[in-house]
Amino acid sequence: MADYSAPLRDIEFALEHLADLESLSGYEAFAHAEPSMVRGVLDEAGRFMNEVIAPLNRTSDLEGSVWHDGDVTTPTGFKEAYTRYVEAGWGGVPFDPAYGGGGFPWLVAIALQEMLSSACMSFSMAPLLTQGAIDMLAHHADETQRETYLPKMVLGEWTGTMNLTEPEAGSDVGALRTKAVPADDGSWRITGTKIFISFGEHDLAENIVHLVLARTPDAPPGTKGISCFIVPKFLVNDDGSLGERNDVTCTSIEHKMGIKASPTCVLSYGDRGEGAVGYLIGEENRGMRYMFTMMNNARLSVGVEGLALAERAYQDALAYAQERRQGRAIGAPAGESSFIIEHPDVRRMLLTMKSSIEAMRGLIYVTAEALDRAANDPDEAVRERNQELTDLLIPIAKGWSTDLGVEVTSTAIQVYGGMGYVEESGVAQHFRDARIPPIYEGTNGIQGMDLVGRKLPMRAGGVMADFIAGMRALDDALADAGEDLASIRTNLHQAVDALEDATNWILTHGLEDPNQALAGATPYLRLFGVVAGGWVMARQALAATERAASGEGDADFLVAKVATARFYAENTLPQALGLVAPVTSGAAGLFAIEPKYL
Amino acid sequence: MADYSAPLRDIEFALEHLADLESLSGYEAFAHAEPSMVRGVLDEAGRFMNEVIAPLNRTSDLEGSVWHDGDVTTPTGFKEAYTRYVEAGWGGVPFDPAYGGGGFPWLVAIALQEMLSSACMSFSMAPLLTQGAIDMLAHHADETQRETYLPKMVLGEWTGTMNLTEPEAGSDVGALRTKAVPADDGSWRITGTKIFISFGEHDLAENIVHLVLARTPDAPPGTKGISCFIVPKFLVNDDGSLGERNDVTCTSIEHKMGIKASPTCVLSYGDRGEGAVGYLIGEENRGMRYMFTMMNNARLSVGVEGLALAERAYQDALAYAQERRQGRAIGAPAGESSFIIEHPDVRRMLLTMKSSIEAMRGLIYVTAEALDRAANDPDEAVRERNQELTDLLIPIAKGWSTDLGVEVTSTAIQVYGGMGYVEESGVAQHFRDARIPPIYEGTNGIQGMDLVGRKLPMRAGGVMADFIAGMRALDDALADAGEDLASIRTNLHQAVDALEDATNWILTHGLEDPNQALAGATPYLRLFGVVAGGWVMARQALAATERAASGEGDADFLVAKVATARFYAENTLPQALGLVAPVTSGAAGLFAIEPKYL
Repeated sequence: MADYSAPLRDIEFALEHLADLESLSGYEAFAHAEPSMVRGVLDEAGRFMNEVIAPLNRTSDLEGSVWHDGDVTTPTGFKEAYTRYVEAGWGGVPFDPAYGGGGFPWLVAIALQEMLSSACMSFSMAPLLTQGAIDMLAHHADETQRETYLPKMVLGEWTGTMNLTEPEAGSDVGALRTKAVPADDGSWRITGTKIFISFGEHDLAENIVHLVLARTPDAPPGTKGISCFIVPKFLVNDDGSLGERNDVTCTSIEHKMGIKASPTCVLSYGDRGEGAVGYLIGEENRGMRYMFTMMNNARLSVGVEGLALAERAYQDALAYAQERRQGRAIGAPAGESSFIIEHPDVRRMLLTMKSSIEAMRGLIYVTAEALDRAANDPDEAVRERNQELTDLLIPIAKGWSTDLGVEVTSTAIQVYGGMGYVEESGVAQHFRDARIPPIYEGTNGIQGMDLVGRKLPMRAGGVMADFIAGMRALDDALADAGEDLASIRTNLHQAVDALEDATNWILTHGLEDPNQALAGATPYLRLFGVVAGGWVMARQALAATERAASGEGDADFLVAKVATARFYAENTLPQALGLVAPVTSGAAGLFAIEPKYL
Repeated sequence: MADYSAPLRDIEFALEHLADLESLSGYEAFAHAEPSMVRGVLDEAGRFMNEVIAPLNRTSDLEGSVWHDGDVTTPTGFKEAYTRYVEAGWGGVPFDPAYGGGGFPWLVAIALQEMLSSACMSFSMAPLLTQGAIDMLAHHADETQRETYLPKMVLGEWTGTMNLTEPEAGSDVGALRTKAVPADDGSWRITGTKIFISFGEHDLAENIVHLVLARTPDAPPGTKGISCFIVPKFLVNDDGSLGERNDVTCTSIEHKMGIKASPTCVLSYGDRGEGAVGYLIGEENRGMRYMFTMMNNARLSVGVEGLALAERAYQDALAYAQERRQGRAIGAPAGESSFIIEHPDVRRMLLTMKSSIEAMRGLIYVTAEALDRAANDPDEAVRERNQELTDLLIPIAKGWSTDLGVEVTSTAIQVYGGMGYVEESGVAQHFRDARIPPIYEGTNGIQGMDLVGRKLPMRAGGVMADFIAGMRALDDALADAGEDLASIRTNLHQAVDALEDATNWILTHGLEDPNQALAGATPYLRLFGVVAGGWVMARQALAATERAASGEGDADFLVAKVATARFYAENTLPQALGLVAPVTSGAAGLFAIEPKYL
C-alpha cells in the first residue's frame, strides 16, 4: 500500500479551471479567500492529512471502534489525531467567523474534505456529521441555541450527529415513531430508538450534539408531522459548562463490512425515565423541511467519499503497477519481466480510474461552486440559477460518484491481482469502505427518483435544458482547438444527444405516468453522470490546451490532462449510447413477471 | 438472509433448452445419463446442498479456516459435511467409472457445481481443486500413478491441489523457481515455495495430493522448462496405505477479504532436508502443456462461481424485497407502506440480477456441452468444431461471469440498503466472496488477452465467424415469433453487428500490432459476453415460446422466461453500442501519458 499523498496539483487545477475559485473571492464574504491564500491552506491541509490522518487508515480497519457497556472506544491514534485536527481548526474552515469559522467558500471545504476522506474515511465521518449538524443549527436554531452550540461545534470540541433512521423507517423518514412531549420548562422529552447513527457515541470529543427527528403529540402523519430537536449527550449549563448526562444511550454498534472505525450506533432515548431532554429547533412539524436545507451539502459530501476512496485506491494501484514485475510487454527486451504498468490492459485500468476520478472531482467541485454562488451572489437571479443548478447536479454528484467509487476501488484490486484480495495489501479495505456511500444519505435509487421526479421537472424541464445548452456551448471552442480535441468534440456531441433524447422521453412519459420515469431512473442517473463527466473533461482539455499555449505551467502535466480527457471521451462517453434504451424501455417490462416467478 | 434453495427448475430449463442434455445421452459413454435419470440426481443433489452445505456458509465466514503450527482447522461443521459429501459420491459424478466415478457428462457436473458453490463457495473449493487434479492425472499420469491416486481422489477421500504460483511468478508461470532433482529410486526431490495454494493444508481428508510445477536441472528457461510432479502430503505405500509424512509444510495462510474458510496456503517444499518426494507426471518439460489440458475445465468452474454467488445473492435480495416494507409505491393505497418489490427501481435491480444470472447460466452450460461433445463425439469433425467453440467461449464464461458476479452481488447489497452493509445480513459476504473469481485461474485481464491474442485468430477468425453466423441464424425464428419477441430480435441484431465490427477491427489491427488488440481486450471481452448472453437469452425466449405453444409446462414460468429475456434484450444488450469505441480506440491513447504524470 502506498502512502497517501494529497493530489494538490490536480485539486488546484480543478479549483482554477473547472470551478472558478478566483471569482468566488470577488464575493464580499470571501474577500480573504484569494486563490494564493487558499493554496496555502490546501498545502498545509494536505501535509496534515498525509502525515497525521492517513497513517490511521489501516489501523482503523483492523481495530475498528469497540462498544463496551454503552461506551465506544475509537482505534489507537484516533483521539490524538482528532485533537490535532481540532487544534488546527480544519473543521471550521467553511463556517461563519462569528462562531469561530474560517469563512471560506464551501468549495474549499469540499477540497479539504476530499483529502480528509482519502486519508481515512471512517475518521472523516466525525467531522462530516458535525458539519451537517452545524449547517442545520446555523440555518434554523435560535440565537441562544446557536451561541450555546455552534462555537464548540465549529471548533470541533463537540461533535454532532443526525438522527433520522429508525428500524422501520429507513429511506421512508415519514414513518418514524420517536416521540417528543413538551416539559414545563419549555424543553421537550424525547423517547424512541434510532439506528444507523454514525459517531452516535465515541471518545473523541467531550460532548455530542444529537439532532433528532421526532413527532410531537397530535403531529400530522408522515413527513409533515416531524420536528427536529437538539439532544446533547451532556446537558449544557447556562455558563456553557457541561452538566449532567442526558438520557441517551448507545445500546450497540453494527458489525459492518467497512468503515469499521466509524461507530454505527443504535441510540436509545429515554430508557431511564420520562425521556431525554431535547430542545426544539425552529417550529414544530418543520423538521423535514429543515433537513432538506442541509441535504444538498450532506449528499455532496457523500459524493466526495466516492471520489476520495477512488483517489486513494488509484494511488495504491499506480504505485503497485510501477513496482510489480510480471510477464513481458510487447517489444520489451527478452529475458526480463516488465513492470505491469507496461501492459496495455493495466494501462487501461489505470486510465479508466484516473479519468473517472478527474471527471468526478470536476463535477463535484462545479457543484460546490454553484452552492457558494447560490448562497452568496448579490444578484437574486444568479443565486436562483445556481440553486437550480445545485439541485439538478446533487443527485449526480452523490449517485454517480459513489457508484464509481465502488468500480474504481474494485479495479484497484484487479491491478493488484491475488495480492489485492489479501487484506494486508490495504486495497481490499478501500473496496469495502466504498460500498456504503451508494447506500447512505439516500440510496442511489432514491437519488435517481429525486432526479427524474423532482429535478428534471424544475421549470418544466427548463433547468435541464439550460444545462444541456451549456454543454453544447463548448462545441465551438472544441472545434477551434483542432485535431487534438476532435474525438472529444465528436463523442461529447453524440453523448449529449443521447442524454437529451433520454431526458425528453422521461419528461414526456413521466407526466403521463410517474412509474415510466421512475422505471428508468437509475440508468438515467448513470447516463447523466457519464455525460456531465464528459462535459467537465472537455472543459479540462480546453483549459489545459489554452494554458499550454500560453507557455505557463508544466507542459507534461497539461499534456496528461488533455490525454486523460481524451481517454474519457473515447472510452467512457460512448457508454451513453447504451444507456438510452434502458431509460426509454418503460415500466411495463419491470412488472411483467409475477413476484412468485421472479 | 434467505435459506438457499437450489434453483432446480431454472437449471433444468437450461439443461433442456439451452444446452442439449438429451442428445448427450446419445453418446455411448453417457448412455445411462438420460434426462430423467439426471433430473433425479440433480434433485437429490439440490436437497443435499440446501440441507447440508448451505447452512455452513455464514459460519465459514465468521470462523474461517485457522492455521496453527502447520495445521489448518476448517470451520465448525466442515469436516462432517465433507464426510457426507464423500459418502454421497458427489465428487465423482463426471469421472471415469473405472476409477469409481459416475461417468456423467461434464455438463451435469457443472450444474452440480453451481449448486455447491452457491451453497458455500469456500467449501466448494476443496472438491473443485480436487477435480482439477483428477483431470490432470487422468490425462497425463501413468497407469500406476492413476491406480494409486485416482480411486481415492474420485471418491474424495484424498483431495488435490494445483501448485503454480510463486512469490515472483503469479500470472507469469514461466518465471517459477521451484526445483526438482532426480533421486536414485526414480522419484524426485522438490524444493521451493508456493503461494496462494487453495486447500493446500486442511483437516477434511486423510491425504492431500499436490500437483507441483517445478524445474528440473538443465531445464530450458520459461514455460518450456516446467515439469509437473505429484507430491503427496503423506507418502503412499505399495499396498495403498499411508506412509510417512512428506517434506511439505504449510507455513501460513492468507488473511483474505472473503472465502475465509478456504485456506490459501503458503507451502514450503523441502525445508527439512533434501526435498519433498515427488513423482514426475508424463515427460519432463511438458508441465505447462499438461496444465493447459485442464485449464478450460478449471476456468469454466471459476466462471460457475460468478454465476453461483450471483444466484445466492439474488435469492437473498428477492426474499428481502418481498418482506421489507418501505415508502409507498405509485398507486398503492394511502396509509400503508409497500413492499419494496413494488418500487420500479427495486424491480429493475431484481430483473437485472435475474436476467444476468440466466444469461450466465445459459452460456456456461452451452460451453460445458461443447466440452462434452469435444471429448466424446464419434465424428472427429464434430469434436474439433466443439473444441474450437469451447476454446472461444472459455474466456467469456470465466471473465464475463465473474465480473457479473461482483456486479450482481453488489446490487443485492443495494436492495438491502443499510442492512446490506451490516455483516449479519449475510449479503455482504457474497460480495466479498465474489471479488476473487475475477482474479484467480488467470485474471480477467489475462482472459481478455487470451481471447484477442489466441482465440479470435483461430482459423484466421473463422471460429468466431462461425459463432457470429450462429447468432445471426436465430433471426428467422425470432421474426416468425412475432411481436412478443420483436424487441429481442432488433436488439440482438444490432448487438451482433457491434460485436462483428469490433471483431473485425481487432483481427485487422492486431495483425499489424499486437498491442492494438491487447489495448481493447477487456472491453472486447465484455462486449462478447453481453452479446453472447443476448444470444442465449434469445434462445431461451424462443424455447419458452415454443413450449408454451405446445401447452406443456407451467405457463407462468414460461412467460417469466420470455419476459426475462426481453428485459435483457432491452436493457442489457444495448450496452454493446457503447463498447465498440473502447475496443477500437487503439493503444496509442493508453501510452500517451508518461508514468510519472499518471
